Amino acid sequence: MKQCPPGWALPGKFHSDEEIYRLDLQQVWRAGWLFAGHSCEIPKAGDYFTMDVDADSIIITRGETGTIQALHNVCRHRGSMICSESSGRVTKLVCPYHQWTYGLDGRLLACRGMPEDLEKSQFSLAPVHTREIEGLIFVSLAQNPSPFEPAFETLAPLLKPQGFRRAKVAKIVDYVVNANWKLVWENNRECYHCNINHPQYIKANFDHYNADDTTPRVREAINDVVARSAKKWAASDLAPTHKKTGMTIFPDAENNIWFSANRTPLVDGWLSETMDGKQVAPLMGDYQEADVGTLRMRTLPNFWNHSSCDHSVSTRLLPAGPQRTAVRVYWLVDEKAVEGRDYQLEKIMPFWQLTSEQDWVICERQQRGVNSSAYVPGPYSTFKEYNVDSFVQWYLKMLTRDVRPANESVT
Amino acid sequence: MKQCPPGWALPGKFHSDEEIYRLDLQQVWRAGWLFAGHSCEIPKAGDYFTMDVDADSIIITRGETGTIQALHNVCRHRGSMICSESSGRVTKLVCPYHQWTYGLDGRLLACRGMPEDLEKSQFSLAPVHTREIEGLIFVSLAQNPSPFEPAFETLAPLLKPQGFRRAKVAKIVDYVVNANWKLVWENNRECYHCNINHPQYIKANFDHYNADDTTPRVREAINDVVARSAKKWAASDLAPTHKKTGMTIFPDAENNIWFSANRTPLVDGWLSETMDGKQVAPLMGDYQEADVGTLRMRTLPNFWNHSSCDHSVSTRLLPAGPQRTAVRVYWLVDEKAVEGRDYQLEKIMPFWQLTSEQDWVICERQQRGVNSSAYVPGPYSTFKEYNVDSFVQWYLKMLTRDVRPANESVT
Amino acid sequence: MKQCPPGWALPGKFHSDEEIYRLDLQQVWRAGWLFAGHSCEIPKAGDYFTMDVDADSIIITRGETGTIQALHNVCRHRGSMICSESSGRVTKLVCPYHQWTYGLDGRLLACRGMPEDLEKSQFSLAPVHTREIEGLIFVSLAQNPSPFEPAFETLAPLLKPQGFRRAKVAKIVDYVVNANWKLVWENNRECYHCNINHPQYIKANFDHYNADDTTPRVREAINDVVARSAKKWAASDLAPTHKKTGMTIFPDAENNIWFSANRTPLVDGWLSETMDGKQVAPLMGDYQEADVGTLRMRTLPNFWNHSSCDHSVSTRLLPAGPQRTAVRVYWLVDEKAVEGRDYQLEKIMPFWQLTSEQDWVICERQQRGVNSSAYVPGPYSTFKEYNVDSFVQWYLKMLTRDVRPANESVT
Repeated sequence: MKQCPPGWALPGKFHSDEEIYRLDLQQVWRAGWLFAGHSCEIPKAGDYFTMDVDADSIIITRGETGTIQALHNVCRHRGSMICSESSGRVTKLVCPYHQWTYGLDGRLLACRGMPEDLEKSQFSLAPVHTREIEGLIFVSLAQNPSPFEPAFETLAPLLKPQGFRRAKVAKIVDYVVNANWKLVWENNRECYHCNINHPQYIKANFDHYNADDTTPRVREAINDVVARSAKKWAASDLAPTHKKTGMTIFPDAENNIWFSANRTPLVDGWLSETMDGKQVAPLMGDYQEADVGTLRMRTLPNFWNHSSCDHSVSTRLLPAGPQRTAVRVYWLVDEKAVEGRDYQLEKIMPFWQLTSEQDWVICERQQRGVNSSAYVPGPYSTFKEYNVDSFVQWYLKMLTRDVRPANESVT
Repeated sequence: MKQCPPGWALPGKFHSDEEIYRLDLQQVWRAGWLFAGHSCEIPKAGDYFTMDVDADSIIITRGETGTIQALHNVCRHRGSMICSESSGRVTKLVCPYHQWTYGLDGRLLACRGMPEDLEKSQFSLAPVHTREIEGLIFVSLAQNPSPFEPAFETLAPLLKPQGFRRAKVAKIVDYVVNANWKLVWENNRECYHCNINHPQYIKANFDHYNADDTTPRVREAINDVVARSAKKWAASDLAPTHKKTGMTIFPDAENNIWFSANRTPLVDGWLSETMDGKQVAPLMGDYQEADVGTLRMRTLPNFWNHSSCDHSVSTRLLPAGPQRTAVRVYWLVDEKAVEGRDYQLEKIMPFWQLTSEQDWVICERQQRGVNSSAYVPGPYSTFKEYNVDSFVQWYLKMLTRDVRPANESVT
Repeated sequence: MKQCPPGWALPGKFHSDEEIYRLDLQQVWRAGWLFAGHSCEIPKAGDYFTMDVDADSIIITRGETGTIQALHNVCRHRGSMICSESSGRVTKLVCPYHQWTYGLDGRLLACRGMPEDLEKSQFSLAPVHTREIEGLIFVSLAQNPSPFEPAFETLAPLLKPQGFRRAKVAKIVDYVVNANWKLVWENNRECYHCNINHPQYIKANFDHYNADDTTPRVREAINDVVARSAKKWAASDLAPTHKKTGMTIFPDAENNIWFSANRTPLVDGWLSETMDGKQVAPLMGDYQEADVGTLRMRTLPNFWNHSSCDHSVSTRLLPAGPQRTAVRVYWLVDEKAVEGRDYQLEKIMPFWQLTSEQDWVICERQQRGVNSSAYVPGPYSTFKEYNVDSFVQWYLKMLTRDVRPANESVT
């Protein structure tokens, strides 16, 4: 990887080459932990949703005991996709082709028409490792995934007050972004682009200010908010954990830290990431009042979330080709909130819908540029793009780690 | 081919890999005999239709002496496609680019603008071998095709009574199925999937019953029909040749039997493969009464047909990419039948239109599944999928046979 | 290149193979001089338009001193495309991602957020060589382009009277032609196909007549026109330079002549290449009367133009894939002409719009034919396709010349 020196952007082929994309799938997407969705999407036994990691369709279900589990959506008989709907409820998983019938845990229960001596135990649906953190579902397609505990231990206490387990999905919007997934991440890992591109976002936040361009006024403003909040929440776990302008440091390639969360203050007077900063839905989770700043988290390679006192916005990335990323944005509110009565979509959605869509335009424009034969990688700002550099270093480390793909097709 | 043990499905790459698709074209599609269409589609001299075998366009014409012949649709001058319409009538084949003019037999007749000494005899359109069996047209793109006689001798007597030479095409429907052509065949080669997927089909037929699940009642039913028909038609060639539940054995990889036909009984009270079993058009061919069961035939790699007393349904497959098959379904009736007066499309079409479209959905769902990195080939049912296994064995044998491609592009 | 003997068409893979297409980009498109557009499209400082050579987007601007210059449309920071509109006016080139700001000459002027010690001079936009001939803009993506002077010296005097510098674009129509760029050129390089395919064009011209098929009547007709014009314009530079039926000889592979222009007579009674030969717009340039025949020019690999006394039609090709060419056709008139008052689009456009679109149909049909595995290259007519052969020989010579690509992506 001599051609990828620290501090400089990746060569263009990393964003367009089919072979590198295949390597990304093997080394990153089928090796790491992926955010799949929210446990509140499948509240009852038999509820399921599917997700596509490139050509791999995964079924995420709630089993009969209430446990969440994930399975490859591929019949062990002749390979038919079993669930072709993106969500639903079933009692068993029945392949529509020849009705091979599997339990929600993937065990083959019936396969009428096959010889009696077929060893059913050998034909379970391929399992996918699953873990949950306070209502967030993660899966790993790896046979021997890396330990999940460090992520759990770090994230669980910070997530708990938000009440994701008692939330509901108010709205999902799906996007296809014509850009390599890494460009979407690089965009996410800096706020250098925010000033001009995100007029809504910068009204609410301190991220776009950096050490090098923070005026005394701004510094004073954040210090005031932090001090007030810290004092107010001293006894609870709601005190800000990110106390400065600019973005938190993430990821940490050196120590393979692919997860993090912070409680971050909003600017004075803003109670929620909405167009005017006002609260627009009932308080979520354990919150007793609105002035709790925002909870933010991110896990590589495919998830970030910004949560306010009253609503939460999750973003999930999935690779759909060298220059194509499937993005799903979820808006969540308290499970008891009723649309129209307690909240309105047109109040909770615009802040992040606009900010997200502004970013997709940026990413697609960058993709077109890096496809040029004239593109040469440029330098990252040490002030403003340290996290982009960290992301690239993390990615390059993943590319060279030793993984055995979950299932190699027999050739 | 160690990775393809008998009795097990093919690895996924056989259904998606570009290189294997190219090999399929060379070893199967440009080597074997392909069903092209019906002679009644081109009743008069100069009538033609075209067909696309991947990127190879073929013109099938009726020549001046009434003989059917086939030619590559590629001008010998600069390669322009000559006929861009899918069917029509011409007296000569004139290239629209520079008006090089060919006879219906492919001989270059005129090329105004070229030097006088051009040896016209060296610039005939590339010929395609053509054979006809009782109104069914077959072509081979091979330079030295395998013998056609065995197919002719087997099929001709069985086909004769159906009267394909005195038929007309009542309707053609074209489909693009997003699945590898082999998945379409595998679907065709078993009725294990029929019970749930083909509610119309199973009302008329015995195929979906197999040795292992045929009740005494069903066995009695088919025996009764067979006995009655055999007695009735003892003197003619209309007696059932397939006398049991389940599907006939086909293909036979060992002996390279890529063609077969049977007369097969329908369930008692069904005279035609229609929604209610009633006759819906005038009797075809030599038939004197409706109770003749059904004539069925299939030839690899691209044709099957089910014929009732009053109408006949042909299905033609053509490869259009690793995950894409062009399918044409034809409904035929007696040439003298008049639409509206003697038959109605809404009566003759639904049985096979529904059954076909049900299968295309199945095939596309299977394609998505076998594309997964988690797909591993499963076992075929020895009771119900013996023909799928035979198809796979036949295919693998074709892959390794010695063929020289008809025309390799000079490189 | 033994497989490409002179006098014969290219093997099919030259028109479909991805690798050969990449070679074409390197050896032809990123090595030669490309027509970009007309200087009258960007009359004022800061005016720009963009053009796409495969994945390379180029910005062509008029600088503050009035000079035209071209730059790669790729930010030196993280590679974002800078101008995403196809034309506009700017004072500086500001990357929409992080507002790196460049002068119209490409120099990096500002990059707020980067370390102070960043050497701005090292981060100019990649320059593209630019030259102008009497209002026609040419660019070269090569680092060391071949000399432009021979083209300039040949073309400038012939172009001058047409007044391209005092013209305006009346209309642009963009096409995507599903054919390799070389097929589009081969079509352009002969009028063998004109008789049947271009009913409008042949009414006005002598090109489609050749030595071998010119009747005494036609020969007399052209001699009369040539004699009359030569006498009339003896004192000026408007006398016909192409005096025979058929097309002028072009290109000259031996001497690398990739440019040429001629003044060519129209048939008697035709003053302009319009549907009825009548003048349809005010005289352009230096012309004092309408009877000036036509000025025609062509430069490889991507430009041809036919100019009448009153309007001018330019055609620009750009490669967009192995089987895909982006074609732009421009109609120009005198800069003072006012639409509706001095000219009507429905009078100036049909002649070349019809002729062009007839050719795109031809090219797409040829592409389909040469994709066939049965395609074998045929012979060129020595009477009518000498220029097609010259084009192919020129192309093959370009393929093997020694070029270093402008910017190889670091790998």
